[in-house]
Amino acid sequence: MPYIQVMITEGATAEQKAELVEGITDLMTRVLNKNPTTTHVVIKESATENWGIAGRTVKQLRAEGSPKVSPR
Amino acid sequence: MPYIQVMITEGATAEQKAELVEGITDLMTRVLNKNPTTTHVVIKESATENWGIAGRTVKQLRAEGSPKVSPR
Amino acid sequence: MPYIQVMITEGATAEQKAELVEGITDLMTRVLNKNPTTTHVVIKESATENWGIAGRTVKQLRAEGSPKVSPR
Amino acid sequence: MPYIQVMITEGATAEQKAELVEGITDLMTRVLNKNPTTTHVVIKESATENWGIAGRTVKQLRAEGSPKVSPR
Amino acid sequence: MPYIQVMITEGATAEQKAELVEGITDLMTRVLNKNPTTTHVVIKESATENWGIAGRTVKQLRAEGSPKVSPR
Amino acid sequence: MPYIQVMITEGATAEQKAELVEGITDLMTRVLNKNPTTTHVVIKESATENWGIAGRTVKQLRAEGSPKVSPR
Repeated sequence: MPYIQVMITEGATAEQKAELVEGITDLMTRVLNKNPTTTHVVIKESATENWGIAGRTVKQLRAEGSPKVSPR
Repeated sequence: MPYIQVMITEGATAEQKAELVEGITDLMTRVLNKNPTTTHVVIKESATENWGIAGRTVKQLRAEGSPKVSPR
Repeated sequence: MPYIQVMITEGATAEQKAELVEGITDLMTRVLNKNPTTTHVVIKESATENWGIAGRTVKQLRAEGSPKVSPR
Repeated sequence: MPYIQVMITEGATAEQKAELVEGITDLMTRVLNKNPTTTHVVIKESATENWGIAGRTVKQLRAEGSPKVSPR
Repeated sequence: MPYIQVMITEGATAEQKAELVEGITDLMTRVLNKNPTTTHVVIKESATENWGIAGRTVKQLRAEGSPKVSPR
Repeated sequence: MPYIQVMITEGATAEQKAELVEGITDLMTRVLNKNPTTTHVVIKESATENWGIAGRTVKQLRAEGSPKVSPR
């Protein structure tokens, strides 16, 4: 019955998303004994101008080459 | 004052969304006696590759014709 | 497959919650033709000091007898 | 370590978003003494047909010139 | 920089929660190459009267011995 | 019409929460010209065993005196 939301900046491939869905569902089943049939994993992607960390958007941090965020 | 979030896979029409907003607001007013003026309903649509159930994305399940998800 | 979150201030009874769950699930089935078996409705209750509207918490507004919020 | 989600209808500029991220992060640091480095602010924009208030979508309310919503 | 929310009914132990946090963080690092230092996992527990599935609360389903939910 | 959710570990006072509500509502009005009357700010507090960062819960990190989290 669990519901998991994954918030990330955009850029993941369909294959990576499928791998996340499978991995998180496995974890919920193994650790909490949850029924996989009713386990939902939803991925929410945000544009880099919509995600801020340490007071600046990821878009700004990447433009400045900040080490606080991965290059892409 | 309530705030309701509806998470679905994409594909609903503007008419269906308006009907949901009206129906949920009515429910909040009728069941909980909430003021409709401050009742917010927000609909979040996800791509089928961003929604997983039972360890696989809806995109994968639909491609396989799985009975776990509606055809569209 | 939908997932609906209902955010309200605390105070609803178990009966009211059950009625909301039933009503919202019916709406999702009727309006969007969703499968009720995979429709989740989760209710999140917040203390009145944790909910703000118009720049003040509901706790403050109620203490002041503000017409902006219901008395309870 | 805080995580703040800002849900708005679409239309904000990148500059406004950066200003929100900066302002909210400052508040978390000043009021709660939180470490800005681990403070995340994520902005979620919704289409006006996906946001309802008082039982009608913002799209409908704007088309009717309702005073309940700002003109844009 | 990712943020993951895990919504479950209450009842998990501190050890299970720690295992989930570790497992999900590992997944984000391995699959998406995300920096673990800025990966947040937040677990939200709901009372069984606050979680509905198929139009009924988990509290009701468990009282009825429904096979739709795990016994605890 | 905006809705802002603030996720933090538990421990803030009612005064700090009221200050956050006021500050964030002011920001939304000043930066985005939003109507404060329909601006909602909801604060969600989590137990330290329910919040993970860098693969470990805040409860574990504090017990170890980790510099990654504030002492309280």
